[in-house]
Amino acid sequence: MAGNIFGTLFRLTTFGESHGEAIGGVIDGCPAGVEIDLEEIQKEMARRKPGQSSIVTQRKESDTVKILSGIFEGRTTGTPIGFVIENDNQKSKDYSHIKDVYRPSHADYTYDQKYGNRDYRGGGRSSARETACRVAAGAIAKQLLKDIKITAFTSAVGKLKLEKKYSELDFNEIEKNAVRCPDGATAEKMETYIKEIRSQGDTVGGVVECVITNVPAGLGEPVFDKLHAKLGQAMLSINAVKGFEYGSGFEGAEKKGSEHNDLFNEDGSTRTNYSGGIQGGISNGMDIYFKVAFKPVATIMQKQDTINSGGEKVEMQGKGRHDPCVVPRAVPIVEAMAALVLADFYLLNKTSKI
Amino acid sequence: MAGNIFGTLFRLTTFGESHGEAIGGVIDGCPAGVEIDLEEIQKEMARRKPGQSSIVTQRKESDTVKILSGIFEGRTTGTPIGFVIENDNQKSKDYSHIKDVYRPSHADYTYDQKYGNRDYRGGGRSSARETACRVAAGAIAKQLLKDIKITAFTSAVGKLKLEKKYSELDFNEIEKNAVRCPDGATAEKMETYIKEIRSQGDTVGGVVECVITNVPAGLGEPVFDKLHAKLGQAMLSINAVKGFEYGSGFEGAEKKGSEHNDLFNEDGSTRTNYSGGIQGGISNGMDIYFKVAFKPVATIMQKQDTINSGGEKVEMQGKGRHDPCVVPRAVPIVEAMAALVLADFYLLNKTSKI
Amino acid sequence: MAGNIFGTLFRLTTFGESHGEAIGGVIDGCPAGVEIDLEEIQKEMARRKPGQSSIVTQRKESDTVKILSGIFEGRTTGTPIGFVIENDNQKSKDYSHIKDVYRPSHADYTYDQKYGNRDYRGGGRSSARETACRVAAGAIAKQLLKDIKITAFTSAVGKLKLEKKYSELDFNEIEKNAVRCPDGATAEKMETYIKEIRSQGDTVGGVVECVITNVPAGLGEPVFDKLHAKLGQAMLSINAVKGFEYGSGFEGAEKKGSEHNDLFNEDGSTRTNYSGGIQGGISNGMDIYFKVAFKPVATIMQKQDTINSGGEKVEMQGKGRHDPCVVPRAVPIVEAMAALVLADFYLLNKTSKI
Amino acid sequence: MAGNIFGTLFRLTTFGESHGEAIGGVIDGCPAGVEIDLEEIQKEMARRKPGQSSIVTQRKESDTVKILSGIFEGRTTGTPIGFVIENDNQKSKDYSHIKDVYRPSHADYTYDQKYGNRDYRGGGRSSARETACRVAAGAIAKQLLKDIKITAFTSAVGKLKLEKKYSELDFNEIEKNAVRCPDGATAEKMETYIKEIRSQGDTVGGVVECVITNVPAGLGEPVFDKLHAKLGQAMLSINAVKGFEYGSGFEGAEKKGSEHNDLFNEDGSTRTNYSGGIQGGISNGMDIYFKVAFKPVATIMQKQDTINSGGEKVEMQGKGRHDPCVVPRAVPIVEAMAALVLADFYLLNKTSKI
Repeated sequence: MAGNIFGTLFRLTTFGESHGEAIGGVIDGCPAGVEIDLEEIQKEMARRKPGQSSIVTQRKESDTVKILSGIFEGRTTGTPIGFVIENDNQKSKDYSHIKDVYRPSHADYTYDQKYGNRDYRGGGRSSARETACRVAAGAIAKQLLKDIKITAFTSAVGKLKLEKKYSELDFNEIEKNAVRCPDGATAEKMETYIKEIRSQGDTVGGVVECVITNVPAGLGEPVFDKLHAKLGQAMLSINAVKGFEYGSGFEGAEKKGSEHNDLFNEDGSTRTNYSGGIQGGISNGMDIYFKVAFKPVATIMQKQDTINSGGEKVEMQGKGRHDPCVVPRAVPIVEAMAALVLADFYLLNKTSKI
Repeated sequence: MAGNIFGTLFRLTTFGESHGEAIGGVIDGCPAGVEIDLEEIQKEMARRKPGQSSIVTQRKESDTVKILSGIFEGRTTGTPIGFVIENDNQKSKDYSHIKDVYRPSHADYTYDQKYGNRDYRGGGRSSARETACRVAAGAIAKQLLKDIKITAFTSAVGKLKLEKKYSELDFNEIEKNAVRCPDGATAEKMETYIKEIRSQGDTVGGVVECVITNVPAGLGEPVFDKLHAKLGQAMLSINAVKGFEYGSGFEGAEKKGSEHNDLFNEDGSTRTNYSGGIQGGISNGMDIYFKVAFKPVATIMQKQDTINSGGEKVEMQGKGRHDPCVVPRAVPIVEAMAALVLADFYLLNKTSKI
Repeated sequence: MAGNIFGTLFRLTTFGESHGEAIGGVIDGCPAGVEIDLEEIQKEMARRKPGQSSIVTQRKESDTVKILSGIFEGRTTGTPIGFVIENDNQKSKDYSHIKDVYRPSHADYTYDQKYGNRDYRGGGRSSARETACRVAAGAIAKQLLKDIKITAFTSAVGKLKLEKKYSELDFNEIEKNAVRCPDGATAEKMETYIKEIRSQGDTVGGVVECVITNVPAGLGEPVFDKLHAKLGQAMLSINAVKGFEYGSGFEGAEKKGSEHNDLFNEDGSTRTNYSGGIQGGISNGMDIYFKVAFKPVATIMQKQDTINSGGEKVEMQGKGRHDPCVVPRAVPIVEAMAALVLADFYLLNKTSKI
Repeated sequence: MAGNIFGTLFRLTTFGESHGEAIGGVIDGCPAGVEIDLEEIQKEMARRKPGQSSIVTQRKESDTVKILSGIFEGRTTGTPIGFVIENDNQKSKDYSHIKDVYRPSHADYTYDQKYGNRDYRGGGRSSARETACRVAAGAIAKQLLKDIKITAFTSAVGKLKLEKKYSELDFNEIEKNAVRCPDGATAEKMETYIKEIRSQGDTVGGVVECVITNVPAGLGEPVFDKLHAKLGQAMLSINAVKGFEYGSGFEGAEKKGSEHNDLFNEDGSTRTNYSGGIQGGISNGMDIYFKVAFKPVATIMQKQDTINSGGEKVEMQGKGRHDPCVVPRAVPIVEAMAALVLADFYLLNKTSKI
């Protein structure tokens, strides 16, 4: 399996299965001299952690990031930052019932097709447990980026949508509710709805929106590695993501040029920002904003028809502790991936001109 | 500028500015022994070419792909395939009026910010002229992929949308109209609308849909290089693209797990295909389908306020021959990028298991 | 610090400092289905381990490789293989005397120049401790390569040279002596010499030769990634290496074409093998052989003048337990790096033709 | 064929066969703002060109580098620099006699083994003609590096060796003789010897030495991408190279630590320079120097036994115009590859610390 390395200069490699001994990662290319606050890393981990509220999975994971190298006396040394996160929740027997069964809309079937075998314990490598490593690495990337502020939040749960624009919202509200929606009233509705869905043994999808402010102009490498193209890859690489749009997005496709063009102010800023802070694949200094669509979690607590690896029909029912809606816990993952993309482009941009 | 190389094993590097002497590219990693029909390449070029119909730009480019290496006696030799496409349309003086002016929603400002200078002749590297190289390379990738069939078409122009599902459409209709919409009646409306928009000196956005059939299971490299994540990057790297969704997409985010899960048939196929042919980042053998949103072309034939490189207000108006809607010509580009992604994963997959 | 990732398809990333908590690595791209014998890995580690004989450093390291992912029920799963090796020998205080001192011919000065700070505990990242990770990964690569046999041995210690050609030697002798020289009489002289050098508080260089048999034709990727070019990089990346030659090497430069050309037998093998099993950067099926020159270990137990980070003259003397000659322990490292190179080309070659 | 891309940030991709229409390349990642003197590029080409003196091949190639993109108004723009060099010498019929014959010590056999087919016209991709692209790209890299001075010269032809150290030589002498040896008397002997060898229809090997001065400390990326490791790969990737050593090289392996260590002066420079300007893979500011061994050219004007692609014995004799000794023309190629390596590390080093 290639594809476990992300980035050109700020490169994250991750490893680990959901029910192996540990997961972990290595960042190669973080510059020397970055002050690292380890508590900040742990804080981000807590935002992604199972069991953090009543509307997420109640699995127990301490998610302690143990840094093994690359940081010395509080600063990065320029050498690779290796880290591991132990899997506390290694109950392999829980998963024997799915050993030979292909769970619908999971990766069981495709892994078997591709690799000829798979670690059937709880999704193995295809489990979203891997994203814990991204959050750890993203927390380091954020400390490199310093003044660039990345803020994600829940903008939809099923058909319940946050109708306000991000500029009308108070981002301080985000962490005040379990859904991570910056509008209290909407958050409440979403929370109620998630609980209702869970009580049905069902799950629901949703949308995360992300806003990045204080971005210097110049980040992004056209042609193939446009800033939004790598953001797109980054977001689509998160488990359960089905779509990505930035700036005016799919709505922009309905517009005319005369209404969509962002006219300049004299200082180079623009009056409107349909461009989403990116023109020609390069940041222009305006806010970057984008949306990420998540499908409903595939594991539901209802009986489903499926097949086993022999191609025989079987009936199965989800067991264990799963998220009814992945979106609240996805918020820090979206931020982490955005941070990894920006850190990479931030370094690349140091070599754009003499 | 890094970012001009795409792919891991089937790697395309492109070069060239819209008004330089030529553009071109190199494919490194195409296996030996692939029979190449040069006419097929030229056919794809013709689908992207300016001047092909009354609703696209009337610029003249012969867009002849001259292959310089890597193909011998009708077959690839395994060595890099270098090619050039001359720019017939090199009228640099046409562009002197924009030398110091930042066109709204173009990349003029961001290139200057990033590189400190730029080739101001008609967009230079940021021009969609570069996509001609992608189409040429994609035509070669298609010949490697052989049985895998990639079909893109126009599914929306502005607010005019093709309401049918792709399974209800006759793909043979696509190339029968200038808009490349497989539904004749809708195509007619779209064409009329584009002409109307053009007569206003305006432009309009749209959506391209793409369907890939006959894909073997196993393509895609989780974790970061999921099949849909690289498709997403590929599509978002096309000029003017604002969004990407595959399978159920943004609508999938509104659904419940119980309605969204794709239940298996005994042969491993699925009854529904909300997954869009991809599970856990790996193809499962079902059709892959996705949508790509394009913003309206930024160059409009109306007066617009803007600034020059000195930060002074100026008024400008688009000149020359531009597309009122990019979508009809984007159809082969979307296909080409899909082919490049699949060719790469096709080769990578040969190393997935012993 | 970039440069901690090696390989294109079979990719090893390593991390860790000599006196941090642990070192480790990740292999991304090992195909699924490779049977892994964990004892084989540990056996290779034992060949590199400190304290293995009287002529190597007496430091204590258990060098137990703990595999965290990627292997399930005795086989690789295609997912990344993460592993850690704990540093038992973490006595940081031992190194306080070199905190501000630049040891001659070490990397202290250059790391400070490059990174602005460094982990001064025992060489940190620049320590050859890192090569333990290469040996672990190489042991896995060897199991992928199966029938390809890689054998390295000591061919010179200082001016004491093994005069026989590799074809005259019995490789079974290699592991029978502490020097790893396949000629008993020469081995004895070398061992005596190393002890003498050590008793002087001095160190000495040497040469490792490596022979690879049973290589299929076709491995190697011209132009820049010729098989011998990547072997060269791999070997030169090992600590203390100063030179690399393959086939006829530097002696070949003295020869005439008429005496150097390898004439073919009818089966495609060659009568002579000055080419060293590689022609045009691609293996031809004959034995690959090469030599690697190691400089004397820089840490000597004699007083030396040097400077501190303030640029002041100071006198220093090596402390602790160091190798008087690195070559016996380098033998498995050379093999490991060769295995990593071959594993990568073995996978790449699966995509060379349709 | 992968392996046609070199470098991480300053990336050269080359393409083209010796007897195709043209060869060429693309540099992706050259920063914007570098002043480019096109005559300097052509000057370097002239140093590598066939027909430049009486001791090299008398083939005719104008070797004009045509730059197609990336340079505008005398400066790089940051976009990829595409260039082509036409093959004037396309006489395919000259090569029909080797269509089915495997020339000894050439790449004919291995290409057929690897790719299943090959362009048999004069070596195709395996021809040293490809190095013309490296020289063109290297000439651009040199202009980026500016103050760093790279000087290569012939230090041996067959057994005739330049006995002086580089510090005793006058580099201004190098271009004054056809052999490119900075010692007039030795150059004369070498020239006479090459002519003698040629009159026998034979060829001879040799050694190029290279010295790089004015290198800032800090270039090189440990662990795998040590400065000397990438220099080694770069040199070994040149056609006919059999060995590489830097600093004390193979002789260093004979030395004791007490005689080999480079003691510091108070300014960080060292009294001796056995390290060859590189410690721990990173430049320390001292001169970098290394040697590169070239085998004798495989094409000789004598009858040789060989086999054809059917495995039958045949007799063949070289035809056409070939170099009796590759070393004089290899001098600028060695410099070009060194420039490419340094340009890459120069850019990478901009991201080593904050």
